[in-house]
Amino acid sequence: MPNQAQALVLLSGGQDSTTCLALALEEFPNGVHALAFDYGQRHRIELEQAQKIANIAGVPLQILDTRWLAGLSTNALTDPTLPITHLDGKLPSTFVDGRNLFFLSLAAVIAKQKNIHTLYTGVCETDFSGYPDCRADFIQSLNQTLNLGLAYTLKIATPLMWLTKGETVLLMQKLGHLDWYAHTHTCYEGIRPGCRQCPACLLRLKGFEDAQLKDPLEYRAVTP
Amino acid sequence: MPNQAQALVLLSGGQDSTTCLALALEEFPNGVHALAFDYGQRHRIELEQAQKIANIAGVPLQILDTRWLAGLSTNALTDPTLPITHLDGKLPSTFVDGRNLFFLSLAAVIAKQKNIHTLYTGVCETDFSGYPDCRADFIQSLNQTLNLGLAYTLKIATPLMWLTKGETVLLMQKLGHLDWYAHTHTCYEGIRPGCRQCPACLLRLKGFEDAQLKDPLEYRAVTP
Repeated sequence: MPNQAQALVLLSGGQDSTTCLALALEEFPNGVHALAFDYGQRHRIELEQAQKIANIAGVPLQILDTRWLAGLSTNALTDPTLPITHLDGKLPSTFVDGRNLFFLSLAAVIAKQKNIHTLYTGVCETDFSGYPDCRADFIQSLNQTLNLGLAYTLKIATPLMWLTKGETVLLMQKLGHLDWYAHTHTCYEGIRPGCRQCPACLLRLKGFEDAQLKDPLEYRAVTP
Repeated sequence: MPNQAQALVLLSGGQDSTTCLALALEEFPNGVHALAFDYGQRHRIELEQAQKIANIAGVPLQILDTRWLAGLSTNALTDPTLPITHLDGKLPSTFVDGRNLFFLSLAAVIAKQKNIHTLYTGVCETDFSGYPDCRADFIQSLNQTLNLGLAYTLKIATPLMWLTKGETVLLMQKLGHLDWYAHTHTCYEGIRPGCRQCPACLLRLKGFEDAQLKDPLEYRAVTP
C-alpha cells in the first residue's frame, strides 16, 4: 500500500520550488506529492525539468492542464510575441493575472481530495519580482479564503518567503541536495542551461555568488 | 462608442443571479456586463436561460469555458451517475469544491481587464444550502485576497446575502422585472419549467408563497 500523502509541493521546475520539495521531504520523508501546471508557458522545458526533479526526488508528479489560464489575460510568459520587460513602477510584463491565485486554489482542491493538509510553495518577497501574488499578505489572505471556501484546514507553507537567493542556496546545500539544482530551469529566455544575461539568470548567479558556492548548472559560453 | 462597463454580474440563469442583474442595472443603467460559466453542468438549460435573460435585459453575456472544473472533483452537479442528496451534517453532493472560489476569481481577472470595479453575485446564506463558498465570511475574505493578488480594487457585491427567497421575490417586483423570472431556471432535476418537487423547486415555490405573489413560470402538472 502506498504511503499516505501529507504534503503537496507546487513544483515549477525552478530553484525555489525545488528547494521547497527538498524541505517538504525533510519534514515528510515518505509523504510528498508534487504538482506542476501546464499553463501554456512559453518555455516547455520547465515542465520537463520538473519531471526530472520529481523523478530524482522519488515523488509522484501530477501535471495539471491549466492552459485556459493563458486565454484569460495577455502577458509575455504565455504570448511569445510580447517582449519581456521590467519597468520601474509597473507590473512586469511576465505577470499572469491571478497565476498564483489559481495555482494555489487548484492545489488546495487537489490536496483536499488527497487528505493533504500542507501545501508548499516557493513564493518569495525578497527577490523583488513585483508580483503581488507572491507577497506574504496575499498568501495569508488566500490561506484563510481557501480554508473558508473549501471547509477544510490547509496550511500554505512558504519557507522561502523572506530568504535571499543566497540563503536559499545555502539552505539547499544544508539539505544535501545542491546537486538537484543542476536540473532546475531559471532562464527567462528559455535557454538551457541559461543565458546568464536575463534578470532571472542574473539573480540566480548572484545567489550562488553570495552563498560562495558553485552552481551545478553547466552554463554555455555566451557571445553577447 | 459603447458605454464603459462598470459592473460585472455573475449570471447563472437562476433566480438569484437574475435579481442581481436587475439590481446592477438599477445602479449602472448602461454599464452592466454579464458572465456565465460552462463548467460541464448537468443541466445545459441553465446557460440557455442565462442567454435569454441577458438578451431581455439588453446586456452582453460572456460564457466562459470552465469545463476543467468538472475534472477537479467528483460531485452530482457534473456527474450524472451520482444521485443528488442533501444529508444533515454533510456537504450536499451538489457541492463542487471551490466553485465560487474559481468563478469569482475568474470574474475578477476579467473585470480588471474591462476596468470594472464591481462584481455582483447572488450568493445567499439564508437558503441554508450548506455551501461554504456562499457564506459572507468567505466572500469577504476572497474579496480581500483578490484585491491583494491582482493589485486592483474590486468590490464583490452580495445584495441577496441576508434575504429570504420571499424577500428576493418582493425585491424583484419592486425593481419592475418579476417577469424575468419566467426565464430563470431553478429545478435541480433539469426539468423545464420545473419538477416542483426537488429542494430547489420547493424553495422557489415557498419564496413566492411567502411573498404572496404568483410565479410567472408556468409549471407542468406533476404526476408523483
